[in-house]
Amino acid sequence: MSKISEPVLKMAREAKESARVTASLSSETKNLALITMAERLSEESEALIAENRKDLDGAGAKGLSGAMIDRLRLTEQSIGDMAAGLREVAALPDPVGMVTSMWKRPNGLQVGRMRIPLGVIGIIYESRPNVTVDAAALCLKSGNSVILRGGSEAFHSNLALTGILQEALRSSGIPEKAIQIVPTTDRTAVEELLTMEDYIDLIIPRGGEDLIRTVVRLSRIPVIKHYKGVCHVFVDASADIDMAVDICFNAKVQRPGVCNAMETLLVHSGVAPEFLPMAAEKLSEAGVELRGCERTRAILPGIGEAAEEDWYEEYLDLILAVRVVDGIDQAMDHIAVYGSLHTEAIVTRDYHNAQRFINEVNSSTVLVNASTRFSDGFQLGLGAEIGISTTKLHAFGPMGLEELTTTKFIIYGDGQLRS
Amino acid sequence: MSKISEPVLKMAREAKESARVTASLSSETKNLALITMAERLSEESEALIAENRKDLDGAGAKGLSGAMIDRLRLTEQSIGDMAAGLREVAALPDPVGMVTSMWKRPNGLQVGRMRIPLGVIGIIYESRPNVTVDAAALCLKSGNSVILRGGSEAFHSNLALTGILQEALRSSGIPEKAIQIVPTTDRTAVEELLTMEDYIDLIIPRGGEDLIRTVVRLSRIPVIKHYKGVCHVFVDASADIDMAVDICFNAKVQRPGVCNAMETLLVHSGVAPEFLPMAAEKLSEAGVELRGCERTRAILPGIGEAAEEDWYEEYLDLILAVRVVDGIDQAMDHIAVYGSLHTEAIVTRDYHNAQRFINEVNSSTVLVNASTRFSDGFQLGLGAEIGISTTKLHAFGPMGLEELTTTKFIIYGDGQLRS
Repeated sequence: MSKISEPVLKMAREAKESARVTASLSSETKNLALITMAERLSEESEALIAENRKDLDGAGAKGLSGAMIDRLRLTEQSIGDMAAGLREVAALPDPVGMVTSMWKRPNGLQVGRMRIPLGVIGIIYESRPNVTVDAAALCLKSGNSVILRGGSEAFHSNLALTGILQEALRSSGIPEKAIQIVPTTDRTAVEELLTMEDYIDLIIPRGGEDLIRTVVRLSRIPVIKHYKGVCHVFVDASADIDMAVDICFNAKVQRPGVCNAMETLLVHSGVAPEFLPMAAEKLSEAGVELRGCERTRAILPGIGEAAEEDWYEEYLDLILAVRVVDGIDQAMDHIAVYGSLHTEAIVTRDYHNAQRFINEVNSSTVLVNASTRFSDGFQLGLGAEIGISTTKLHAFGPMGLEELTTTKFIIYGDGQLRS
Repeated sequence: MSKISEPVLKMAREAKESARVTASLSSETKNLALITMAERLSEESEALIAENRKDLDGAGAKGLSGAMIDRLRLTEQSIGDMAAGLREVAALPDPVGMVTSMWKRPNGLQVGRMRIPLGVIGIIYESRPNVTVDAAALCLKSGNSVILRGGSEAFHSNLALTGILQEALRSSGIPEKAIQIVPTTDRTAVEELLTMEDYIDLIIPRGGEDLIRTVVRLSRIPVIKHYKGVCHVFVDASADIDMAVDICFNAKVQRPGVCNAMETLLVHSGVAPEFLPMAAEKLSEAGVELRGCERTRAILPGIGEAAEEDWYEEYLDLILAVRVVDGIDQAMDHIAVYGSLHTEAIVTRDYHNAQRFINEVNSSTVLVNASTRFSDGFQLGLGAEIGISTTKLHAFGPMGLEELTTTKFIIYGDGQLRS
């Protein structure tokens, strides 16, 4: 990408200029803007629903599935939820300006680290229009400016939503270009943006693995992402069997289509004959298809066979791969080979194994005796979630407001010179 | 890069396998290995000097400058310094396993963040052979495995040093492949490594801007780097003039060839007539060439003119660009436009301006009344320095051991399910 087109260059320049302003805004000003956005969304719900109608008509014509059309639809209810989300972000503590530590050097220099915004964040997403509002709110609260690029299927909805957000910025005395949306569905604009490392500090892609791989390949800007979540539960020999059944059921069935759902169950051979039939019964009642290794199928002869590919699979569906292992070492080896660094849990009553699992499994979230479904910014108490990272750099795991900041060194001196 | 050659793939695989081991090593084991390395380097100094001789002969034949040959030369003294550096790293606190925070959720889950190694780190450098030892020591101490790629001019020295480090790993029961060096001077191997995002977690290039830009362009792996350090000192109207002269002199002259030296001096118009002649006299005595804006030249008529390009320039030499500004806003605007996000200082007695500069200038290090030369991992008390980052993601500013780690979420539960 040697030549950047004028509209894209303008957008990036205005984002960078706005970021200098948003970096220094008071928490009060940012919160006022967020609350104004919430009010304006509710007031404009009819107009929003009308714009959304255009996308829904297009989606019907394109032959999108019923589930996808449902996710696309704006209603009084879903607009109310977005407004409530904005008020929640306004109520969160402001990470900007927080001095995370400060110390004194022998020469009297006071050295500290202060949280500052990253600058300009690009968000590329496919999913529901509410991401437009969520992502913009979190970027503003953390003092960043944002360039949004939603999916073409939600084009009119996203444009209308962004218009309302920008209006609220203006009325709060914040440059409206702090929140921008790419105003075309043309791919070239995104490809250009991904090369503009002097203007954009971070790219967050949210969507399917194909979208994310394309972004990583094209981007010269740092990308925070996760390709997939192949999450494991390991049921240890000493597990409380009822707890293990409940955790596995929750991890697989409570919401199978998301990245923190369990995809592979690892069971200690010592407990497998007792545990597997109980778990299989409960999972099968919920419609879960089991695919097992040879030792699993010796205990559950009715189920299908797990092939090598199954261990890598993110089903996002009511399917579960099951493997019997000899113990915690084999379980951790399996996770190291086939895992996606997302989320893993152990169910055990053994103190030593709990501590080994916590210390030795280096996925972004590691749990003892709890469902993998807790790997989520809200559930962990971050107050928000802009995404989940399985890239270890900068952020690893669910990302809240702090992950949209970095720290600079601040130094108070009194004429110190280096000798 | 579609096809990876077998030796490079083997190197990356072995690095990744070793990283699983180094991640779980006790601090004692790592420290013992570092101290063994120090002992072995001293014992093998003659052999090292003999290998270094080959590089020095090659350098003479290639026509390298005297200064470059000096940097390349290993002596009893420089080998002793490396050994001392290894002992210092052994004495630093181990960042791995540190729980940086822990909190309790309403449902009783205990959620914490624990520092873990990044995994495999690739270091690409041009400079002196001591980087081989420094970088390997910091990566090991932080539980990472490392692939080193030094400059071809130090090839034999780096190979010999790495051999000794690997021997110390073996004798300490650590896989020797935790520290590897690319055993060829062929560029293809590096180009292949930069595409292997499934094996390598971070690339740190250290060297000239050309090297770094090439690495960024080719890498599919996150890169932490700084292109250059265009560091500013702003002398405010209320500055203590003697302090300002001393700080500017120290920032420019104490070591002009490094990235935290001052390259542009900004002076408040109210103090310029008094300050500039004093500063110019002292700087000129040290051989500094001044290049000024029009207002500077009205006060210092003998000096050359600063062209637009000078404001972007990292001279790394006894040259200084000087601009008179109307006040702190114009100074901060100049820094925002021409700066490189590295290091900026203000000299002032005004409380409000000191606080504005600290809060509003978002370079990686911001100082009040101290020399820019303090922007350095050792000077700031990090205990080590693996590099300086002007990329805001992950690390911003001087990087110590903690910056070679990330954090995972650890969660202790008691059967919690998500509802």
